Amino acid sequence: MASVLIREAKEGDCGNILRLIRELAEYEKLSDQVKISEEGPCVVGYGLYYFIYSTWKGRNIYLEDIYVKPEYRGQGIGSKIIKKVAEVALDKGCSQFRLAVLDWNKGAMDLYKALGAQDLTEAEGWHCFRFEGEAMRELAGK
Amino acid sequence: MASVLIREAKEGDCGNILRLIRELAEYEKLSDQVKISEEGPCVVGYGLYYFIYSTWKGRNIYLEDIYVKPEYRGQGIGSKIIKKVAEVALDKGCSQFRLAVLDWNKGAMDLYKALGAQDLTEAEGWHCFRFEGEAMRELAGK
Repeated sequence: MASVLIREAKEGDCGNILRLIRELAEYEKLSDQVKISEEGPCVVGYGLYYFIYSTWKGRNIYLEDIYVKPEYRGQGIGSKIIKKVAEVALDKGCSQFRLAVLDWNKGAMDLYKALGAQDLTEAEGWHCFRFEGEAMRELAGK
Repeated sequence: MASVLIREAKEGDCGNILRLIRELAEYEKLSDQVKISEEGPCVVGYGLYYFIYSTWKGRNIYLEDIYVKPEYRGQGIGSKIIKKVAEVALDKGCSQFRLAVLDWNKGAMDLYKALGAQDLTEAEGWHCFRFEGEAMRELAGK
């Protein structure tokens, strides 16, 4: 088990995190959507999460991406990131957090299930929908 | 087509929106998770959306729920809410917005597709995962 510090991102981490986002995008075949703007010290993994507040206070967290560099996998870093998100979510009064996973990413799916997540698509039939680009502009009349 | 005003929610709308959330929860068989705390004037539909900002500025919007009372359906109110979300999303510099739909809710699925959304679960195999309650507390060691 590597000695790993899980902490909040700082502005100086942006270059490294963007590099990891690019690696993840290559894995997901979405490289054309990523731009890299700066460099910085080494980051071996990251978790991007967003706190959701409504007028009824903290409700959900959406975890956008989790990525660990291949050479650092198998050391429990992904689990540590998920545990940290759970801790922060509870501290903020959130009752749940969510993320989306590709069905061919069996390693990630197995990890999340082992950590206690429910696959809502499998269990209840939830589908993820996305509006973007041209569709958004047409809807907005822009 | 009803004459409908799509506007931001105000504090005084909370009672009505909670009532609509309760109706939606009944439809989704999740009634035990909803508490009603106040009353107010009539609201016929609502859209709850959350703006997501990362250190790389606006990226995604997650649209939490859309609900229109049965007696007001078929008048284009759902589409108007979606159009407003697209407009606000573009104004905020977001490149996309997302929502989750149950696969037996064919009316909603057909509407979103007709408005230009992609079903990412069908097209790319994305699954929605959720961590909550006991699993979160165990992960956080609380």
